[in-house]
Amino acid sequence: MKVDLLIENVRIYNSYFKTFIQGNAAILDGKFLYIGKRGTDSFEAAERLDGQGRYMIPGLIDIHLHIESTMVTPETFSYWLIRNGVTTIVPEPHEIANVFGIDGVKQIMKASQQCVADMFYALPSSVPATSMETTGGSIEIADLDELLRTERIICLGEIMNYVDVIQDPDSKTNHILKHIRSQYPHLIIEGHVPKLLDLDLHRMIYSGVDSDHTHQSIEGMEARIAAGMFIEIQEKSMTPEVMAYLIEHEVSEHFCFVTDDVMADSFERRGHLNTIVRKAIGMGMKPELAIYASTLSPAKRMRMHDRGVIAPGKIADFQLISNLEQLTIEQVYKQGRKVYDVQEPYTFTAKAPAFPAHYYQSVQMPPLTEEDFTVNIDAADDRYACRVMMVKDGSTFTEEHQVQAEVRQGKLIWQESGRGLIATFERYGKNGNRAYGLIGGDTIKRGAVATTYSHDNHNLLVVGHNPHDMMIAANEVINNQGGFSVVEDGKVIASLQLPVGGILTEEPLEQVASKVEQLCKAMVSLGYRHYNPIMSISTHSLPVSPALKITDFGLIDVNNGKVVPLIINS
Amino acid sequence: MKVDLLIENVRIYNSYFKTFIQGNAAILDGKFLYIGKRGTDSFEAAERLDGQGRYMIPGLIDIHLHIESTMVTPETFSYWLIRNGVTTIVPEPHEIANVFGIDGVKQIMKASQQCVADMFYALPSSVPATSMETTGGSIEIADLDELLRTERIICLGEIMNYVDVIQDPDSKTNHILKHIRSQYPHLIIEGHVPKLLDLDLHRMIYSGVDSDHTHQSIEGMEARIAAGMFIEIQEKSMTPEVMAYLIEHEVSEHFCFVTDDVMADSFERRGHLNTIVRKAIGMGMKPELAIYASTLSPAKRMRMHDRGVIAPGKIADFQLISNLEQLTIEQVYKQGRKVYDVQEPYTFTAKAPAFPAHYYQSVQMPPLTEEDFTVNIDAADDRYACRVMMVKDGSTFTEEHQVQAEVRQGKLIWQESGRGLIATFERYGKNGNRAYGLIGGDTIKRGAVATTYSHDNHNLLVVGHNPHDMMIAANEVINNQGGFSVVEDGKVIASLQLPVGGILTEEPLEQVASKVEQLCKAMVSLGYRHYNPIMSISTHSLPVSPALKITDFGLIDVNNGKVVPLIINS
Repeated sequence: MKVDLLIENVRIYNSYFKTFIQGNAAILDGKFLYIGKRGTDSFEAAERLDGQGRYMIPGLIDIHLHIESTMVTPETFSYWLIRNGVTTIVPEPHEIANVFGIDGVKQIMKASQQCVADMFYALPSSVPATSMETTGGSIEIADLDELLRTERIICLGEIMNYVDVIQDPDSKTNHILKHIRSQYPHLIIEGHVPKLLDLDLHRMIYSGVDSDHTHQSIEGMEARIAAGMFIEIQEKSMTPEVMAYLIEHEVSEHFCFVTDDVMADSFERRGHLNTIVRKAIGMGMKPELAIYASTLSPAKRMRMHDRGVIAPGKIADFQLISNLEQLTIEQVYKQGRKVYDVQEPYTFTAKAPAFPAHYYQSVQMPPLTEEDFTVNIDAADDRYACRVMMVKDGSTFTEEHQVQAEVRQGKLIWQESGRGLIATFERYGKNGNRAYGLIGGDTIKRGAVATTYSHDNHNLLVVGHNPHDMMIAANEVINNQGGFSVVEDGKVIASLQLPVGGILTEEPLEQVASKVEQLCKAMVSLGYRHYNPIMSISTHSLPVSPALKITDFGLIDVNNGKVVPLIINS
Repeated sequence: MKVDLLIENVRIYNSYFKTFIQGNAAILDGKFLYIGKRGTDSFEAAERLDGQGRYMIPGLIDIHLHIESTMVTPETFSYWLIRNGVTTIVPEPHEIANVFGIDGVKQIMKASQQCVADMFYALPSSVPATSMETTGGSIEIADLDELLRTERIICLGEIMNYVDVIQDPDSKTNHILKHIRSQYPHLIIEGHVPKLLDLDLHRMIYSGVDSDHTHQSIEGMEARIAAGMFIEIQEKSMTPEVMAYLIEHEVSEHFCFVTDDVMADSFERRGHLNTIVRKAIGMGMKPELAIYASTLSPAKRMRMHDRGVIAPGKIADFQLISNLEQLTIEQVYKQGRKVYDVQEPYTFTAKAPAFPAHYYQSVQMPPLTEEDFTVNIDAADDRYACRVMMVKDGSTFTEEHQVQAEVRQGKLIWQESGRGLIATFERYGKNGNRAYGLIGGDTIKRGAVATTYSHDNHNLLVVGHNPHDMMIAANEVINNQGGFSVVEDGKVIASLQLPVGGILTEEPLEQVASKVEQLCKAMVSLGYRHYNPIMSISTHSLPVSPALKITDFGLIDVNNGKVVPLIINS
């Protein structure tokens, strides 16, 4: 019979028996038709390929990630996914949703329609993350309904606020959960349940949330699996103990690998989900299991019954691999069509600008002056105990410390406190809110950093040690319509323009990667100590991440869920 | 916190680890809330139950069966399911569809709405089975669309005609498959692919059919699993070799147990799916695996993500078992409510008549006379070679033999041929078709049997050795508006009334079981030799079951798919 493609002499991964079988594969209309010993004796193939004994494995599937973490647009993202053997992803676009609301989600989905990699979407469930911040947009229940009318949404994205789910029946999160469960009883609901165990864990699952991608302990994993939860293992969860557990127990139906956040430089240098799979193999996991955990297992979790496996009737997304342990990619195929070959040129020009005009005009505020970094305090001249956000290397959590600082003529003399200033400015042209705090610890020791890439509200965040550098850093970002800048002695020493909503760029990933590296180096040169200064600073504004954070509403005591004043007792 | 029910001190089956865990279970709003060590310390329970250390396992789930095989209505069926611990089924109502078309399916679904056991439906895909028979109704593509708008349909029922799928692109079956796959790409499609292997098997799967419930060989099972097919094991597939394979290999995600057809007497005496599970355990399968294969595994196949497991958020369908190997049921719960207790009265009165009036008037034909069993032949007086349908004990297949019989004055003198007569009469008032054949082998040797319970067309089928007995048998069934009758020497010696569409009764199962036994005994007393004479005779009219069968179109050469004359060369 006639087929489109016949691949002969390959070692084909069989997902159901988790083993490789020597043979041939025939493809018709973008799907596998046949896997077995038959070849030209049975098939008249429009195209034939000698697989040279290579390994044929399914395209990888990543079901929990945020494209915005790479700061590029879907088109660029897809280009890089494909060369890493990743053919299907389920991104959750909650960053762009915080900037543009429901339209942000729609535009991102639209931008991904023509991509080679398939992108299905997780519906952002927590936009904004709290009610203590001004964002460009929000996702309300009516928005969920509107978005759920599209085919591309396949799950409700991670429910962030697990405390509210358990403790506050009247919280927005519980209203959303109740609505989703009554109106869309079959919708998958993704979770974020760090450290929960026993009754709290079971109550969370009872509420409909049945996956977790946070850092795992053995006890936690066992409790989650026993209770029917699916575990998404990201790189930070890949401790020797966790990997040993996954290797030694029959739990392949209960976990998969995901990337969550991949920075541009890491994506360019190390790769994507393939890096995680390679690392798992390096840590002693059999390739057959590591592949399962990045193909069929995630496909099953997302009920994508048409892919993730090389078997009759399934979409022919696959890759040919020369070295199994290293996952050395020779070719990648999408729906039976070759889309990447290491031996052939692989070029790409993004069709920029791909978004509506106002997406490039989202920073709606005038340039700042040095005066904007003056902290006015309604208190008598005196020394006061002030809260300090202490940055810690190795974590995105901060601690709250105290320092004595002087108020003179209604102004906080923060420059003399021995600490830096952190300021945030509402930048959507909504209310002109601004807030100030003191910052110390492993952050910069001089100069200034400014960014609109500040999770999740993406207002303008500025950290610095003198008003002049802070002004210059802020205005560089404002003039760029978003991005990052690092300033020392009045000069911009590193800058990254993120003109799409102030969080993304249409530049090629290589250039973004290079600029991200320069930004990190520049911050380190100013004294930042952190394995990832960009992730560190961009979460100073995240009011669901402990302990002291800042939004345009003020300093946020995250553990108590409230705004607190800079001066402890004025 | 408040819960509806707290069950303490039970050995709870954990499906994910396939093990039992000692503990308690809390239920709220019909779902499991919590499984673990906590008890009255944490829960304020409206009701408490001491589980006395019993085994707590999920309610069983049967995803491939035909209610009509038991000849009772859904209400009666549900009553008996529950006392056997079966809480969810997926029946395929193709028998009633052959009688009443789409309305038959709707009425059966309606009749099951108030049942305690949950019934989801497989959409009959092959009604009528062939174009060589007259039925009361048919299921066309527009009917599929109409039925698929209901929530209760969860899959396309078994595609019977696998030969057409592979060989005839223009067959009705392929039109249906094409329509379903383009319009409902996520719909599960159930299969029937006896003995298919290699390319034929893969082509079948490629067409969308990815389960099989026919008799299995080891080679066939391995090929099916490797190609992504799900295997439904019915009792006749439970050979020692098949069971050993299922026990020794890690294939629990790839098979489940099903009942397919359970006769009323077997249902009453032996039970239902629980009998299969008990038998599996008796054949050496660990109870933990046998339970998995009759609860979570079938639930997953049908994508019923809300059940089949005792875990937070899942529907609280479960049973308490005192002897695990024997599956001795003490109590059965549906959605957290006790629906059966071996210590308490369990009574039932069917709300008959539950169907529209014309469902009790489906046998639309006048009484027959002895003349109707005269076979007129347009041939000169002579002896002719005639086809004989040879009944074989142990099979529903027949063989075609030949016998010499005389034609005198345009009539076949069949009484002198040494063979019986088989006659079928279109009974829907559509065209008055009738057909005749000779019958021999392990069927009755004297008297007559008549039935409208003749698969799948359910026309009036009569087998006998003299016109008088045949007339009486036929008229008994006609007067009863359907059913079975056995006649000897002019007297009805056994009878079963099936007034709903000529195939079902609203009588209690016990009475049906008793009458079914009497029918079988009566047939055996007339010389029938078969482990199941009812199944044997009721498939004489099934034109997809080899080799020589009969419909109102005439004798059917099944292997060649055509009508053939009684006299081979006249």
